[in-house]
Amino acid sequence: MGDIKQLAVLGSTGSIGRQTLEVINAFPHRFRIIGLAAGKNLELLAEQIKQFQPRFVHSQDKKAHLAKAEYEFLSLEEMASHPEVDIVVMATSGKWGLRPTLAAVRAGKKIALANKESLVMAGGIIITEARQNGAKILPIDSEHSAIWQCLEGETEKPSRIILTASGGPFYHYSTAQLDKVTVEQALKHPSWRMGRKVTIDSATLMNKGLEVIEAHWLFDIPFDNINVLIHPQSIVHSMVEFSDGSVKAQLSYPDMRLPIQYALSYPERLPNPQLPRLNWETSKDLSFEPPDLDTFPCLKLAIEAGRRGGTYPAVLCGADEVAVELFLSGRIKFTDIARLITPALEAHQATSHPTVEEILAADSWAREKVMPLVSGDNR
Amino acid sequence: MGDIKQLAVLGSTGSIGRQTLEVINAFPHRFRIIGLAAGKNLELLAEQIKQFQPRFVHSQDKKAHLAKAEYEFLSLEEMASHPEVDIVVMATSGKWGLRPTLAAVRAGKKIALANKESLVMAGGIIITEARQNGAKILPIDSEHSAIWQCLEGETEKPSRIILTASGGPFYHYSTAQLDKVTVEQALKHPSWRMGRKVTIDSATLMNKGLEVIEAHWLFDIPFDNINVLIHPQSIVHSMVEFSDGSVKAQLSYPDMRLPIQYALSYPERLPNPQLPRLNWETSKDLSFEPPDLDTFPCLKLAIEAGRRGGTYPAVLCGADEVAVELFLSGRIKFTDIARLITPALEAHQATSHPTVEEILAADSWAREKVMPLVSGDNR
Repeated sequence: MGDIKQLAVLGSTGSIGRQTLEVINAFPHRFRIIGLAAGKNLELLAEQIKQFQPRFVHSQDKKAHLAKAEYEFLSLEEMASHPEVDIVVMATSGKWGLRPTLAAVRAGKKIALANKESLVMAGGIIITEARQNGAKILPIDSEHSAIWQCLEGETEKPSRIILTASGGPFYHYSTAQLDKVTVEQALKHPSWRMGRKVTIDSATLMNKGLEVIEAHWLFDIPFDNINVLIHPQSIVHSMVEFSDGSVKAQLSYPDMRLPIQYALSYPERLPNPQLPRLNWETSKDLSFEPPDLDTFPCLKLAIEAGRRGGTYPAVLCGADEVAVELFLSGRIKFTDIARLITPALEAHQATSHPTVEEILAADSWAREKVMPLVSGDNR
Repeated sequence: MGDIKQLAVLGSTGSIGRQTLEVINAFPHRFRIIGLAAGKNLELLAEQIKQFQPRFVHSQDKKAHLAKAEYEFLSLEEMASHPEVDIVVMATSGKWGLRPTLAAVRAGKKIALANKESLVMAGGIIITEARQNGAKILPIDSEHSAIWQCLEGETEKPSRIILTASGGPFYHYSTAQLDKVTVEQALKHPSWRMGRKVTIDSATLMNKGLEVIEAHWLFDIPFDNINVLIHPQSIVHSMVEFSDGSVKAQLSYPDMRLPIQYALSYPERLPNPQLPRLNWETSKDLSFEPPDLDTFPCLKLAIEAGRRGGTYPAVLCGADEVAVELFLSGRIKFTDIARLITPALEAHQATSHPTVEEILAADSWAREKVMPLVSGDNR
């Protein structure tokens, strides 16, 4: 048994944050929460503070009286880089994860990373700084965790990465059918329990495109060697192919607690009876097919933005976030999401090798670009 | 690039031996053949000697004039333990592999092991001696290679091993249908090119049972934690499950050159364009189901013999070899194979912790036990 690892969980009231606390709860002799940070769900944060008695707390509303426990109030960046934190769990969503991730990277931390935007928008900066500062990125996405697990012990880079995608609730729909999709339908993901934004991104396949960009940075693999396969059962979480033609895959029921636990326990694995075991009496058939890029253009847009690099991925993220919000609030159609992102990417004057400030500026530019496209439009 | 490894291939004219030479041919700067040994196929052995110019040769008929090349004639055991040999490829079939494997183990060699009987009959001795003498067993079976690849880099033993089986040409046949199976039908394996004995053992599932026993010894896993799954596509070659519920699988088209090459190149992988790549446009569906132990009793017999241990697996091997020969020569029905092995196992007075001599004696006893059961019987 190793020492107790001291953890800060940023985004503790979100879907990944809550599941992280479940995992930590199962191993009280291995992990100790010393920091909790959340946005607006102060009620749940207060409960978590009561349960885990962290030394450091952050919430978006500084003044909220959270719990009777004694704690020090820190900024996200202070918490992510605090000397007593061994592992930073970055479970905040959106671009708000970027600066704390960078702070953790610069402090040479182990970072269990669920925040997609950090790597998508600023992968070049994060990976370079991580190398310079001895930080280690431990991916929490099921796909990247699968690839990571398959690469352990291998002496060479894979010749190909195959990211699997459930396809979401609308795979095999025509564009005409997608036009009529409701918010309620889009929020019903067939296999994963996730936040609203990620669930919509899964339905458009934008999420898979963002994961392609993340995989490019995490594993230093050219975009040409990253493929996507639709795999509706969500059992095979991704695969890697080597130069001898051998392919390794990681499988499990879709449950985010497994990649979370692996990131926390790595390089060990911890026995956890709460995690489900594959039952081959029920998982009889696994199927795979190439994605339909014409009907699901968001995947193509994301990969293209990733290839172009610079500030393009930031524009992609900013435009997508606004478009998804507009869809969720009933102002645009499902198929309009891609239709709003495309012109933003086309109009963008990109900066290559951008700074964090330039990346965040590109994100803001994209948001302002997308909004007027629907102003006064009340479909 | 590493140094050139010097190889002895025992059983060079059989199916695994020939494919080993194909792999070696693709990497002349990595591997050099210094020993070739074969049984009765002197014509092919002479060709191989001409091509590879080995320093050491063995054949069953010592006197045969094989080729004009200059070489030293060695016994199998001398070749397997020769100081200049880095890797011994044990591709001989049957119990004849046992003593040379043991000689290689005692000489502390790396042993690329395709010979099933060594581990099935004498797993306890081989593994103990390998540990004592610093020998390393590198499995060449596709299933054990898959498990090995999935375990690389892991810090703990798997909680479960899942050996896949194609099911052979008769899976889903009833016992009544199996009664009428011809030799010709049984020799047509749906996915693998292999020798005649192994092909019949695949059709009865005896082969999978022998692999369960091998896996038990190779990976030090209790029989209760080894499962078999029928997977007709032969793409997933086996899987391992860990204590956190994560499963890793190794996939490729069925081609023995991959496990052979992995055993030779380990811990590296070598780029080999001759090896096929999985094409997910054609490999759309992978299916799995539990084996039918009632219709295919050989699997059950083998696992039971493995559990009992001692000389039981030797009796299993001896009885099976005679029974398969009788089937191949048209003297018994396909379903008689299991019917002949069962009474031999039942009548056997086993020795626990047997010596090599006792193991070989049990094998001979089983052969003599089975033969009279069909004497005078000319079905």
